[in-house]
Amino acid sequence: MKVLIILGHPNNESYNHAIAQTCVSQIEANGHSVLFHDLYAEHFNPLLSLDTEAENTELDNQIKTHREDLMNCDGIIVIHPNWWGQPPAIIKGWLDRVLSPGVAYQFVEKDGKHVLLGLLKAKNAIVINTSNTPSEAGDNLLDSIWTDRVFKFCGINNVECKNISVIKDCDVSQRNKWLAEIKEMMNTYFGQK
Amino acid sequence: MKVLIILGHPNNESYNHAIAQTCVSQIEANGHSVLFHDLYAEHFNPLLSLDTEAENTELDNQIKTHREDLMNCDGIIVIHPNWWGQPPAIIKGWLDRVLSPGVAYQFVEKDGKHVLLGLLKAKNAIVINTSNTPSEAGDNLLDSIWTDRVFKFCGINNVECKNISVIKDCDVSQRNKWLAEIKEMMNTYFGQK
Repeated sequence: MKVLIILGHPNNESYNHAIAQTCVSQIEANGHSVLFHDLYAEHFNPLLSLDTEAENTELDNQIKTHREDLMNCDGIIVIHPNWWGQPPAIIKGWLDRVLSPGVAYQFVEKDGKHVLLGLLKAKNAIVINTSNTPSEAGDNLLDSIWTDRVFKFCGINNVECKNISVIKDCDVSQRNKWLAEIKEMMNTYFGQK
Repeated sequence: MKVLIILGHPNNESYNHAIAQTCVSQIEANGHSVLFHDLYAEHFNPLLSLDTEAENTELDNQIKTHREDLMNCDGIIVIHPNWWGQPPAIIKGWLDRVLSPGVAYQFVEKDGKHVLLGLLKAKNAIVINTSNTPSEAGDNLLDSIWTDRVFKFCGINNVECKNISVIKDCDVSQRNKWLAEIKEMMNTYFGQK
C-alpha cells in the first residue's frame, strides 16, 4: 500500500514531528511505502489564488506532486496541532489548494440534479491532533469537520480521529505511551504485508 | 464605535467583497469608524512560525497593527467563503497569528487552577460566509467553531453567524436581497450614533 502523510507544525522538534516519524517508521517496517509531506519544511504556499483556482495547466510542480500523491495513495494520515478548534493555516491551505474539483470530488448530472461524487481511492483516513487545552480533548467539532466536511465529501467513509491532550507539561512516559498507541494504530490500518 | 472588518477572498470582484463594501458603507453612514482589512490585498502572511510564536518584540508591523485593531474595536465582522466547512487558510492564519495569548485570551491562576480569561473588549462578533454547496447552507459546524471555539474563548458571547447559499448561478435580485439583509444587520448592531 501507499500511505500519504501530511504534517503541519512549525517546530521540527515538536511532538507532532515525533508522531509523524512513528507513523513513517511503522508503516515502512510493515512493508508499505510512504508519501511524506512536512508542509512547513516544504515551504508550502497555503493561499488559493485566482490563478490556481482557474485551471490546472499553469499549476506549480509542488501542487501537481501533492495532487498525484493524493490521488494515488491507499490511505491518508494528517497530523496537526488543534489551533482554535481547527487545523493550522498551512493544513487548511493544503485542503484549499490540493483537494480541488476533479481531483478529490466532482459534481455530476444525475436525473437533472447535481450529485456529489467522491474521487479519492484511499480507503482510510486518520487524523491525529494534539492540544494544550483540556477542554479540547476529544474535540467533536474538529472530528466532525474532518470526517463529514472533508473526507466523506471525497468518498472516504472510514475516518478515525485521535485527539491527544494535554501535550504541554506532560512527561516522557506519557508521550511514549501515546506513540505506542499510534504504532498500534498503524499496525491495525497498515499491517504486515 | 470602532468596528473591525476582516475579509478573506482572493477575487476583488467576489460577492464577499460586495458584502464587505455594504458593511463598511452602512457602518460609516451610521457615524461609526471602520478598521477594514482585506487580507489578500494586504498580502497577509498566514503562517505562524516559531519566531512569531515566541515573543512580541520582533513582530512585524502588520501583525502589530492587526493586534491593536483587534484589541481596540467594539465589534468584529469576519467575511469569508465556506471552504471545506471552514474559513480559507488566510482567515485561519489571521486567527493563528493575531489572536495570540495576552492579546485575545490568557490563562490565569485561580485557586490553584488554570482559568481561561477572554481579553477582547468587543461586545459583538458577526461572521458572514458564503457557500456553493446547498448542504452547507446553515452550516452548524462552522457556526459552532466561530462561536464556541473562537469568540467565546476570547470573551465575546454575542455572536451571530449568517450563512449565504447558493452563491453560484444565483441572480442579481437575490444577491441584492441578501445585501439588503446585511445592511439591516449593520443597523441592528451598529445603528445611528
